[in-house]
Amino acid sequence: MTQNIYDDASFFENYSQLPRSVHGLAGAPEWGSLQELLPRIRGLDVLDLGCGYGWFCRWAAEQGARGVLGVDVSEQMLARARVMTQQAVIRYERADLERFTPPAGFGLAYSSLAFHYLVDLGGLLKRVHDALVPGGMLVCSVEHPMVTAPRHQGWSEDESGLPTWPVGGYLDEGPRSTDWLAKGVIKQHRTIETYLALLSRAGFTLTCLREWGPSPEQVATNPDWAKERNRPPFLLLSCRRA
Amino acid sequence: MTQNIYDDASFFENYSQLPRSVHGLAGAPEWGSLQELLPRIRGLDVLDLGCGYGWFCRWAAEQGARGVLGVDVSEQMLARARVMTQQAVIRYERADLERFTPPAGFGLAYSSLAFHYLVDLGGLLKRVHDALVPGGMLVCSVEHPMVTAPRHQGWSEDESGLPTWPVGGYLDEGPRSTDWLAKGVIKQHRTIETYLALLSRAGFTLTCLREWGPSPEQVATNPDWAKERNRPPFLLLSCRRA
Repeated sequence: MTQNIYDDASFFENYSQLPRSVHGLAGAPEWGSLQELLPRIRGLDVLDLGCGYGWFCRWAAEQGARGVLGVDVSEQMLARARVMTQQAVIRYERADLERFTPPAGFGLAYSSLAFHYLVDLGGLLKRVHDALVPGGMLVCSVEHPMVTAPRHQGWSEDESGLPTWPVGGYLDEGPRSTDWLAKGVIKQHRTIETYLALLSRAGFTLTCLREWGPSPEQVATNPDWAKERNRPPFLLLSCRRA
Repeated sequence: MTQNIYDDASFFENYSQLPRSVHGLAGAPEWGSLQELLPRIRGLDVLDLGCGYGWFCRWAAEQGARGVLGVDVSEQMLARARVMTQQAVIRYERADLERFTPPAGFGLAYSSLAFHYLVDLGGLLKRVHDALVPGGMLVCSVEHPMVTAPRHQGWSEDESGLPTWPVGGYLDEGPRSTDWLAKGVIKQHRTIETYLALLSRAGFTLTCLREWGPSPEQVATNPDWAKERNRPPFLLLSCRRA
């Protein structure tokens, strides 16, 4: 089973104070870009893999989704999601994504910043593919492989004092331990090549790839995000079941 | 017009001593992987964009290509190509790829490490797309965007003394000046997102993306390549005209 750091008390406490936890989708600076990759939600059955507090489930319900299934491994996240999102079309299920097999019939599978925790991502992608209707879409975000690659992750400076992100170990895939909100959080590093190959092998056709970083306009409003333009924090992907 | 550094005397002298110049395709460690992306050559009309010494043109002729057109901006490169590759099916043409319009009817367009010099790559991709037969393929390599991103390109070390490649400026695309074989060689930095978007806008469907670095077997034979596994030196792409 994947490390369930979200049920670690101090991690959960810290996570619950992130802007994206407090403000939901509006607190996630990449949401606008991710949203552009989504199909029209109205009338779709929607699956959210790693749904957390259920912010996306709630948004999908508001957009007129026919049904929304939010799945997460964390009991604490789901408990809060059930309190915060009470629309009748939303249903939550606790499951480890490493083994979860979705029921069939979804028009959209969505996942925000969850896939980089999974050891057997390829297995999940095949099961998700089979659970989508023909033409159905998968839209997801992951930490950018440049972020997950180094064994010591952190910013540095070049000879002019400009911020740099030292990349190392990029082609050596596998677990990386980082101290993010808690000590020893384990994420799986994969290259962009591997993400695309896993999607392709699962039967998906790539429709869009974005290396997301804050726009110059976002940086103007939030000057402390400027650094993130030196290497994109997130990779956004959309693909289609043939 | 793109900077034509290949007709700079000292650059050319240094370039001519690289393994890939002396030994041809066998001297290019990524050739085996690039070759895997190629369609069967026999009977195809083949276009080589930035053909250099004509090593690939010669290989394609040996594989039974019906015709091969090698295009390069450098007179010196073409002069040597004409001497080194004398098969009757090969024809060379001097042209600036920024403006070059290929004749129609190619089954394969190929380009090795040339596209990162072009300012208007999107324009060339559209003209190449239109010059391919339906189902025709484009297979190319470029310097990986992690390599081209930093304004000061070079290796560093992390706190454990392991090699790192400090990435900066990744989302700010445009020219980068490096001292590679000569002072002030200008290459154009683009993100992976942009490479894929330009191909898609030109009408291509991506068939394969590889972030090439030496395999562990190649490193065992050439220990000085080990560093390159910390960040892939090349991006290999194949795509198809619908």
